[in-house]
Amino acid sequence: MHFTSVTDIHDVHRLIQEALTLKNNPLAFQNLGKNKTLGLVFMNPSLRTRLSTQKAAQNLGMNILTVNADKDSWALEFQDGAVMDGGSVEHIRDAAPVLGAYCDIIGVRCFSGLQSKATDISEHTMRQFIQHTGKPYISLESATLHPLQSLADCMTMAEHRPKHRPKVVLTWAPHIKPIPHAVANSFAEWVNRTDADLVVACPEGYNLDPRFSGHAHTQHNQQKALEGADFVYVKNWSSYDDYGKIRCIDHAWMLTEHHLRNTNHARVMHCLPVRRNVELSDEILDGPHSLVQAQAVNRVFAAQVILKQMLESNP
Amino acid sequence: MHFTSVTDIHDVHRLIQEALTLKNNPLAFQNLGKNKTLGLVFMNPSLRTRLSTQKAAQNLGMNILTVNADKDSWALEFQDGAVMDGGSVEHIRDAAPVLGAYCDIIGVRCFSGLQSKATDISEHTMRQFIQHTGKPYISLESATLHPLQSLADCMTMAEHRPKHRPKVVLTWAPHIKPIPHAVANSFAEWVNRTDADLVVACPEGYNLDPRFSGHAHTQHNQQKALEGADFVYVKNWSSYDDYGKIRCIDHAWMLTEHHLRNTNHARVMHCLPVRRNVELSDEILDGPHSLVQAQAVNRVFAAQVILKQMLESNP
Amino acid sequence: MHFTSVTDIHDVHRLIQEALTLKNNPLAFQNLGKNKTLGLVFMNPSLRTRLSTQKAAQNLGMNILTVNADKDSWALEFQDGAVMDGGSVEHIRDAAPVLGAYCDIIGVRCFSGLQSKATDISEHTMRQFIQHTGKPYISLESATLHPLQSLADCMTMAEHRPKHRPKVVLTWAPHIKPIPHAVANSFAEWVNRTDADLVVACPEGYNLDPRFSGHAHTQHNQQKALEGADFVYVKNWSSYDDYGKIRCIDHAWMLTEHHLRNTNHARVMHCLPVRRNVELSDEILDGPHSLVQAQAVNRVFAAQVILKQMLESNP
Repeated sequence: MHFTSVTDIHDVHRLIQEALTLKNNPLAFQNLGKNKTLGLVFMNPSLRTRLSTQKAAQNLGMNILTVNADKDSWALEFQDGAVMDGGSVEHIRDAAPVLGAYCDIIGVRCFSGLQSKATDISEHTMRQFIQHTGKPYISLESATLHPLQSLADCMTMAEHRPKHRPKVVLTWAPHIKPIPHAVANSFAEWVNRTDADLVVACPEGYNLDPRFSGHAHTQHNQQKALEGADFVYVKNWSSYDDYGKIRCIDHAWMLTEHHLRNTNHARVMHCLPVRRNVELSDEILDGPHSLVQAQAVNRVFAAQVILKQMLESNP
Repeated sequence: MHFTSVTDIHDVHRLIQEALTLKNNPLAFQNLGKNKTLGLVFMNPSLRTRLSTQKAAQNLGMNILTVNADKDSWALEFQDGAVMDGGSVEHIRDAAPVLGAYCDIIGVRCFSGLQSKATDISEHTMRQFIQHTGKPYISLESATLHPLQSLADCMTMAEHRPKHRPKVVLTWAPHIKPIPHAVANSFAEWVNRTDADLVVACPEGYNLDPRFSGHAHTQHNQQKALEGADFVYVKNWSSYDDYGKIRCIDHAWMLTEHHLRNTNHARVMHCLPVRRNVELSDEILDGPHSLVQAQAVNRVFAAQVILKQMLESNP
Repeated sequence: MHFTSVTDIHDVHRLIQEALTLKNNPLAFQNLGKNKTLGLVFMNPSLRTRLSTQKAAQNLGMNILTVNADKDSWALEFQDGAVMDGGSVEHIRDAAPVLGAYCDIIGVRCFSGLQSKATDISEHTMRQFIQHTGKPYISLESATLHPLQSLADCMTMAEHRPKHRPKVVLTWAPHIKPIPHAVANSFAEWVNRTDADLVVACPEGYNLDPRFSGHAHTQHNQQKALEGADFVYVKNWSSYDDYGKIRCIDHAWMLTEHHLRNTNHARVMHCLPVRRNVELSDEILDGPHSLVQAQAVNRVFAAQVILKQMLESNP
């Protein structure tokens, strides 16, 4: 069992319920991970992902080995056949099996390079880890997806679900840096597998790749998109058409209370870290409609339910 | 319960005794912290503080989550209302509640900026952590105070106490860099709450702020100050009058055996790290009067007694 | 008991057997290290050494405190009598006893400076740690030796041993950077203590120091050296004669399948990280003769058997 995308999940609704049950009793499976080792590799800085995954592993009684790649360890090479006479000092083909030998489950956070869509879509880095560690793999974010975030997001929406089938709006927001698509892609993929209607609001040139956004409706008029929304998920991503580039910095897209006036008392979500008063206004983040902290709390139980299933299926 | 200053402590003498009792049996409360998580945030490098706090938590059976801010994690923003279009990528208002949700007790090491006395005195960084994590807070050093160090220092003096009320001299020493006032301020605050007479010896322009040094006598003549001293605490700090600046590099202030000749066989203390042969001579540090290692050992039990009390009052 | 070289070991054969027995039942001594603390200091990046030592300690139930020197902690000074008015902020004489007080066993990874043979041979850094921590010391690599690697290497050869006394060839390979001699020195020292014939193959100017290579035969013709080899250990090291310099970049020394044609179906070894297609060809590393992953696996049990013996002799 690997966990890299919603497509690895047979029954999303049931997974969400199991995660919420675990949240009610986080220590119920405290001996399940005894003498099992979770190996964590971070190719980038991380706060929530690092801590929530460690906490989840601790709740299950697992040991943890952490590698901060490029800092504690060596710069890795991912190109097959490379003549390694440059800056990288160890090939993933040699490093990954070592991790696999020392650990029972491997979690890796790797990012999009945002240089080439084809490279990012290929998930070359993640696939190399999966292939060469030979152990169950839990994605802590990849070039195109962030499934633990999305599972936590779906848990949060389930906890705050209205009685009717909700309207969920994923709206683009401005940012000063080119940002990967992983959170947006993944959120779309997961919401499309739940009982909800998804609308993606973004400027022209920012449409998501349909392989991830699927049957979601895309709107270039943010206000129209927000009408009647029950949940508004705010997130920047860089352009897909002009891959990895910033084509819009229109501050009107920054979500404020004003933007929520025609929603259905919408709850506002963001995966964090958030650029305050660039992506989202203080008033929303500090106000009663924000769910961002509830999402962060659920990251622990999203990781924990996946680790639990991996431990159960690889005893 | 927070632990940020001696003013958080009702009975300093009793706390010191409890810490010394714990030192005799460090594993006596090994199950107290079971399934509790200590979150540690380091905004600066650290050796003793990092290791002693981790060791204290391990002695109590706690889990530990560590964040090296700016390295493992994101650069934090502390300014309310900031438009975050610069280098900082996450606001303390968003990051701190996540830490609070994942952890039962939060320890943070933050330093003085030494740019503005008002800013440092306000303890803005520490206060933001306390306010936004919503969990018991243990200061691992703040802009103006270092209470765990001072508790360890008081434990060490209690262990080596003469029969009479001791004379304690806190003497400034030279250094090549501008150094915060936290250790000096805090030492003064704590000694003033114990059964001892405190004299602060420093060059002109280096007087400590009376809000910390209190009723201690300040002397600008080091030799006079040292007369009859039972304990000599050596420490550099930058100027208060010309805030955060170096105004004196007089090597005569470096403590040597010669300086101790009119003391009462004084024991010499320093919080470490120490610049050898700049602040203090080798002969003292490697000689029989040094208590610096005894202080470092007591750091474990200073942290442990505070964590123990926090665990007991937040079961 | 310290572990810094094969000369610390009374019976190498028996140690190898004990390590292999432990490998069959890694959790057999799970309570031996309970409430004992292993302190790990890394002066350089590390993947296998870091993870295998942590895993070994976890298998024995030990607590772990890790210091990434120069990053998490302070830059250390090793020169006695230094006037510390430069970049280093803490002397090993002050830092090491703190580590010694907090930990039961100390493991340090320090590297060769490759500036002065005399300095490296003196093992000044390692000796300072041993002297000033006052606790059992386990070398995670020193300026001239890497005994845990060699123990793992000897375990691996024992597992794949032919019926006859094996011929072991340690062959130099090209590299783009000046590399320390520790792995090569240590491998020679250990193999010389086992039932095997060692040949060192290297270009002129690269002979190892006989104090480490001992009675091993040195050959400057790689093909001749490889004839009839049962094990080929590939490793770069910088020149000894022109100390720490690169004097040869002859790509003909890179080991390929072609080089193995006159060996006795030799198994190929390397300590990792390896520069692919510079030191060793892909075809060998990805082929059936490679033992590099087996060596990496054995690193855990090499560390574990030494920690186990230290715990048993210092209960």
